[in-house]
Amino acid sequence: MNSNNFEKEFEKIALFSDKISDSDKQFILENTRAVSYKKGITVHDGNECSGVFLVRSGSLRVYIMSDEGKDITLYRLHKGDMCMLSASCVLQTITFDVLIDAEEDCECFVINGPAFAQISEKTPEIKIFALETAVSRFSDVMWVMQQILFMSMDKRLAIFLWDESARINSDNIELTHEQIAKYIGSAREVVSRMLKYFANEGIVENSRKGVRIINKTRLRELTL
Amino acid sequence: MNSNNFEKEFEKIALFSDKISDSDKQFILENTRAVSYKKGITVHDGNECSGVFLVRSGSLRVYIMSDEGKDITLYRLHKGDMCMLSASCVLQTITFDVLIDAEEDCECFVINGPAFAQISEKTPEIKIFALETAVSRFSDVMWVMQQILFMSMDKRLAIFLWDESARINSDNIELTHEQIAKYIGSAREVVSRMLKYFANEGIVENSRKGVRIINKTRLRELTL
Repeated sequence: MNSNNFEKEFEKIALFSDKISDSDKQFILENTRAVSYKKGITVHDGNECSGVFLVRSGSLRVYIMSDEGKDITLYRLHKGDMCMLSASCVLQTITFDVLIDAEEDCECFVINGPAFAQISEKTPEIKIFALETAVSRFSDVMWVMQQILFMSMDKRLAIFLWDESARINSDNIELTHEQIAKYIGSAREVVSRMLKYFANEGIVENSRKGVRIINKTRLRELTL
Repeated sequence: MNSNNFEKEFEKIALFSDKISDSDKQFILENTRAVSYKKGITVHDGNECSGVFLVRSGSLRVYIMSDEGKDITLYRLHKGDMCMLSASCVLQTITFDVLIDAEEDCECFVINGPAFAQISEKTPEIKIFALETAVSRFSDVMWVMQQILFMSMDKRLAIFLWDESARINSDNIELTHEQIAKYIGSAREVVSRMLKYFANEGIVENSRKGVRIINKTRLRELTL
């Protein structure tokens, strides 16, 4: 990518770039890398300050993991989304760690954490933008928490299938039971049992390739 | 309380009050009420914008509740703490609702939401302060979530008893099993069973008045 295209695309993706001076924008650009990640790669492992991620294409999965390896998806990032939780050095008030995987092949801009922090400290609008981004993720996480804690399994699975089908605009959800379990914060065995139940009810068909929704009306009813 | 004392105490409790002009401070003061709540009262029921709470004495419990009435404590607010989640009209990025109960007799300052929003919109430092307050609660909530999702019950209960004992500076925890269950996001039956187990192990004594810690070393070991 030549530097002119780089700058133009960065401005389009980084919604805060109209809030800073040209010289600060140059400084940020000098501290930004364009990075590609292969599907399945762990992009951020929760410990150090990996910087601020801006998604150019593909999608990232943000999750937490227990010592025993159980994991819960908090949210996913798609094109145009910015991730502050990977940059704990920018927001001191974030004292927890998340992990981030590329769930598809991904292209990202990664802004160096200390460089972003420097601009954010001197530009209140940027700090506000960064904090608001984090707070809106707080809302996502609360939603996940309520789903996990309060909702019965059939409803959680139905909502996941419904949302995923809408997102990919297809009735064929090519995910394994293991993957679905991760997304909804459950165990593979539980998902398999429930999908078998859904299949018996004529709501889905299960195959090695994934799950096909065959009765959208019934599925929809389960989500309500 | 005469208006001079009111102002002095407000300045001590409202840590942001040195970030605004005298006239804005007067405006905030005019839109602040001193309110007392009896133990057990629901202070905020999750729907409307109740305003920004500043705790002067006592403690508030912030929690979420399912349709079936199951509730999970997110965190508690003590003297000097500020609550932004009760003022959804101030932070647009907060799209979830919490409930707040007085868990002891409480005195609070309550700042009118739209008035606080008005000052926060024109004073970036106040907006940053409010957002940072919300983000630090995000960290608390993530901690709770990890406890609930990933931690075994004995450890969760031990950590609760340990922290509570440190907080009240006493080995006598005068809470019912029901109350403890609420705090740690579990069911009363589960807590009772586990406390019986702890008692059998010589770690606590259970009585109608609550739980007494009799072996701090063993309890501490369980929290690690």
